Amino acid sequence: MADNKQYHVAVVGVTGAVGQKMLEMLEQIDFPVEKLYPLASKRSAGKKVTFKGESIEIIEATPEAFKGVDIALFSAGGSVSKKLAHEAVKHGAVVIDNTSAFRMDPDVPLVVPEVNPEDIQKHNGIIANPNCSTIQMVVALEPIRQKYGLSRVIVSTYQSVSGAGNDAVEELKGQSQALLNDEEPETNILPVKSEPKHYPIAFNALPQIDVFEDNHYTFEEMKMINETKKIMHNEDLKVAATCVRLPFFYSHAESVYIEVNDEKLTVEDLQNALRDQEGLVLEDDINNQLYPTPLSAEGKTDVFVGRVRKDLDVDHGFHFWVVSDNLLKGAAWNSVQIAQKLIQQPGGLK
Amino acid sequence: MADNKQYHVAVVGVTGAVGQKMLEMLEQIDFPVEKLYPLASKRSAGKKVTFKGESIEIIEATPEAFKGVDIALFSAGGSVSKKLAHEAVKHGAVVIDNTSAFRMDPDVPLVVPEVNPEDIQKHNGIIANPNCSTIQMVVALEPIRQKYGLSRVIVSTYQSVSGAGNDAVEELKGQSQALLNDEEPETNILPVKSEPKHYPIAFNALPQIDVFEDNHYTFEEMKMINETKKIMHNEDLKVAATCVRLPFFYSHAESVYIEVNDEKLTVEDLQNALRDQEGLVLEDDINNQLYPTPLSAEGKTDVFVGRVRKDLDVDHGFHFWVVSDNLLKGAAWNSVQIAQKLIQQPGGLK
Repeated sequence: MADNKQYHVAVVGVTGAVGQKMLEMLEQIDFPVEKLYPLASKRSAGKKVTFKGESIEIIEATPEAFKGVDIALFSAGGSVSKKLAHEAVKHGAVVIDNTSAFRMDPDVPLVVPEVNPEDIQKHNGIIANPNCSTIQMVVALEPIRQKYGLSRVIVSTYQSVSGAGNDAVEELKGQSQALLNDEEPETNILPVKSEPKHYPIAFNALPQIDVFEDNHYTFEEMKMINETKKIMHNEDLKVAATCVRLPFFYSHAESVYIEVNDEKLTVEDLQNALRDQEGLVLEDDINNQLYPTPLSAEGKTDVFVGRVRKDLDVDHGFHFWVVSDNLLKGAAWNSVQIAQKLIQQPGGLK
Repeated sequence: MADNKQYHVAVVGVTGAVGQKMLEMLEQIDFPVEKLYPLASKRSAGKKVTFKGESIEIIEATPEAFKGVDIALFSAGGSVSKKLAHEAVKHGAVVIDNTSAFRMDPDVPLVVPEVNPEDIQKHNGIIANPNCSTIQMVVALEPIRQKYGLSRVIVSTYQSVSGAGNDAVEELKGQSQALLNDEEPETNILPVKSEPKHYPIAFNALPQIDVFEDNHYTFEEMKMINETKKIMHNEDLKVAATCVRLPFFYSHAESVYIEVNDEKLTVEDLQNALRDQEGLVLEDDINNQLYPTPLSAEGKTDVFVGRVRKDLDVDHGFHFWVVSDNLLKGAAWNSVQIAQKLIQQPGGLK
């Protein structure tokens, strides 16, 4: 159970889109923060962030900056996590890492609190936060798996630009305005900043998120495939993904096809299982044109599901539509939830 | 074979997004038009259209307006087709109908010239042009079906607003500008003009195209399912669809999962089969970040395919990404292609 202990909490990458939302989420649930360590790159050091009404100076993220830190929330890119997460652990912190650096490391639990909270206790200093598009999907899959068994998942994503950072948000704004003015859009960031080719995202759709792997899937697609199996502890679960970047700012949406083990499952059963899931809101009423959209989910911490329907050919097949704010449940909120579970576990933080 | 005959060609709904493109396509292939009949609603009668440099007055679409017409291209909505297509046929015209009015009528062939051109000859006066999202998908599916057999299709679409007409194009422009200016967007058209609720499409995604059916699928989804089976002459083909409207102006994209009968099929085989298909361009080179996008396909008559890859769990499963201009191959170009096949068939137009 929670004691009255207060914690020293570092947020690494505090100036980024997710870092800012981490501060908001810590404030929103009144997380027991005794001292906040806002960490970022050298470039941002000396600037200020506001937390619970207080202005706090940003410190450069160096190994020494973690002295005295109990919990360190990382969201400054994989290379920063690889360089500094173990340093933070050496200083006694528990790291909750929102990058892909350690997600598939067998020594690192990969946690979505609504799905596998028990894995938190197996940590060796680092707990990984899954990919945004994986998190929202497994929150919807888990109650189905528990009640009816799950054998197959095929997902096509509809992902917002904020998943590629604040630069991508600004790029979409700039390109949209340029195209509305009949001007040539500038293309510097999407689909992947570090790749040679950039395409306009405004009024367009890009079937590439992150770099390509040798098997012709993108790294984002492989994250969804591998992370889903790890979180659900089922290497035999069939998962396929196609990830697409789209011109909206916040929230990811997903068209999900599943096959369950129970051939007699009805749409009503499935809707009820989803309705009972913690952290999930069923918005599914076709008579009132009710379904979630990226705009309707923006700024909310829940996962929203709609358009539940049975496949017309396969008795144990179902389709649905999952939407959630990628910066909140997909990143900052899930990390802060893990931190909350950590301090609430028997014996407290350890 | 084609003779030197010239034809009297009516375009019904000539002021609409597709009607305008029909004129463009007729001009582009220099279709042997002796006389053009630009038909539209009473409201547009008296206005002018330009065809092959000539300014021609729009006539109200009435039963009498079809006197002397050889070929009538309809794209003015299902209710206009239901009212006037048979009248046109009575006057001796062959109707090529781009609405959903007659597509599932067993007496009406539903034709994509690259897939089932032989069905054209079975017409009884009316030939139906399939739904835009169906057309581009079956052009990609057909060479696979022919060579390797096809048992299952699961598609999630990424559809542009122009599929909902010029009003929807204007709505996306207006809403985008409003949101960039931090103003409230006006919502009057999408997802479906005639439905009670409207949601913003700018910087959003709407999982509803056309009205809902009793089985929880939308009519657009059922069109893809039923039309694909009819065009491919295979009632047993398993087809599932999720249709989503997105904030871009032209072209539809599709994330397609298929299962073939040949378990040994490789990605290279599949790419070769697609490359050989008439009317299809393979744009699939991950080393050079090459894949089609709605913007890259805009204004082109071909269907573009990329992101071809093997499913990681199912040996006979494959994924790919199909893009085409919904107003061209998805509508106007397919209709004009049918007209072209009609006049080229042995014995000419009959």
